[in-house]
Amino acid sequence: MSDSDYIPPKVWTWKQGSGGRFANINRPIAGPTHDKELPVGKHPLQLYSLGTPNGVKVTVMLEELLALGYSGAEYDAWLINIGSGDQFSSGFVSVNPNSKIPALLDRSANPPVRVFESGAILMYLAEKFGAFLPKTYPKRSEALSWLFWQMGSAPFLGGGFGHFYAYAPLKIEYAIDRYAMETKRQMDVLDRHLAEHEFMAGDEYSIADMAIWPWYGAMAQGILYEAGEFLEVEAYKNVQRWTKQVAERPAVQRGRMVNRTFGKPETQLWERHDASDFDTKTQDKLQAGS
Amino acid sequence: MSDSDYIPPKVWTWKQGSGGRFANINRPIAGPTHDKELPVGKHPLQLYSLGTPNGVKVTVMLEELLALGYSGAEYDAWLINIGSGDQFSSGFVSVNPNSKIPALLDRSANPPVRVFESGAILMYLAEKFGAFLPKTYPKRSEALSWLFWQMGSAPFLGGGFGHFYAYAPLKIEYAIDRYAMETKRQMDVLDRHLAEHEFMAGDEYSIADMAIWPWYGAMAQGILYEAGEFLEVEAYKNVQRWTKQVAERPAVQRGRMVNRTFGKPETQLWERHDASDFDTKTQDKLQAGS
Repeated sequence: MSDSDYIPPKVWTWKQGSGGRFANINRPIAGPTHDKELPVGKHPLQLYSLGTPNGVKVTVMLEELLALGYSGAEYDAWLINIGSGDQFSSGFVSVNPNSKIPALLDRSANPPVRVFESGAILMYLAEKFGAFLPKTYPKRSEALSWLFWQMGSAPFLGGGFGHFYAYAPLKIEYAIDRYAMETKRQMDVLDRHLAEHEFMAGDEYSIADMAIWPWYGAMAQGILYEAGEFLEVEAYKNVQRWTKQVAERPAVQRGRMVNRTFGKPETQLWERHDASDFDTKTQDKLQAGS
Repeated sequence: MSDSDYIPPKVWTWKQGSGGRFANINRPIAGPTHDKELPVGKHPLQLYSLGTPNGVKVTVMLEELLALGYSGAEYDAWLINIGSGDQFSSGFVSVNPNSKIPALLDRSANPPVRVFESGAILMYLAEKFGAFLPKTYPKRSEALSWLFWQMGSAPFLGGGFGHFYAYAPLKIEYAIDRYAMETKRQMDVLDRHLAEHEFMAGDEYSIADMAIWPWYGAMAQGILYEAGEFLEVEAYKNVQRWTKQVAERPAVQRGRMVNRTFGKPETQLWERHDASDFDTKTQDKLQAGS
């Protein structure tokens, strides 16, 4: 049956197994599927995550805080294998009822405080340490506006364009066109802003950059969904300038390695429990033992 | 050509005019299309918006603040007709470079402060007035987590499900299935949380409720995309309870009228410049004159 003939039923029913890559982890219901506690390490902050763009936002923030000398930002980063359904364990659901990475548990509070959604975690850490979120207007409102812009926009880039261009089991022209257009519009929004501002909130690097860079910087580099040529990302010169500038920060280079399970082996640090874990030897040992 | 035969080109090109309802306002580029200043009224806060769920979040917040006695929250609400391209005027783009409603200009600051993205506006107003965002943890982190949850989730409900179920020029079974499943999952996430909590952040009504209610409350009421039967929304008993509870608040009833251009005439207040505008006579006069 072609799509033009399709008439939705009165009541939707779940066709299990459809949905392309990730079909096995998408469900129409929430809640845990199995009982399992989360591991807990030695540091105040326990991060349960994966090295996707949403995960990278938080590990970059934590590494930036540590680079500034905030020792209270020491953290254990645990790997949540979403392909294996780790996000549906009773332990994970208790920290994030939405079953998505990243999720943070702050054990320096009593009782421990949970925070979920990458944007909320960035806000929480910015408030806790008083860093990377300007305190005066208009810089603060710019940082907030662009932080929320990322949260509301990236679902069109990732859940929309990425899914239909790269992951769906069939290529649907209408859907690819819809989301390619929106992704290019978003890149142009950023490009025009970065033509006049060094960073998203102005002249100050902030959590807005940390939220936007893992998605739109990866798109600018042509590595996200390998769509660089398709979307002609080289044309966004100001995004290109900013992407390179942010990528040069040592904390960003460390943060993007954490919980990363793809790419060259030397870029992967599956778990992070200590600053020394970034040493190549430790990293190799971790990978050999897993 | 059926979708299964479709092979994306090397480089995407814009097919103008495709895209269903709203096709005329979706573009692959940002920036203004024409020169026009925004109107400015007498109050400190100037809101440029429309009575969609994202617009309603902010007008509910402003009405709640006024109901608490914060006279600094007095506002002019101007109608942005997105079908006519008002969001692409030079004036609007200067307040929101993303060309989406709602956008806020706070003229009590010098120079005036712009805020865009509904979630950022809620945060900005909550911080400015010290209201509707708990100051202590875990209530504050719960409010933040759920506020950001809404921002990251609703694009799947609106831009995904709503588009493919209600607005797209053809019914694509795969896309409808994908987003119906995710919308039901999100409703279930809320339902499980509201089974144990009166409001999203716990026992305190907050900006998290104001962000979630206009989208998920409307879905629970079966009025959003007329998809109530399709998604069996009556089954989400706790969302139903919370939806009714929030809907009973007088400030919510006023807020949802502002910039509303659809539904029964007595529910529409196209512009709001004074508390007395909610009087039926003023409203009728406004509509008769427009």
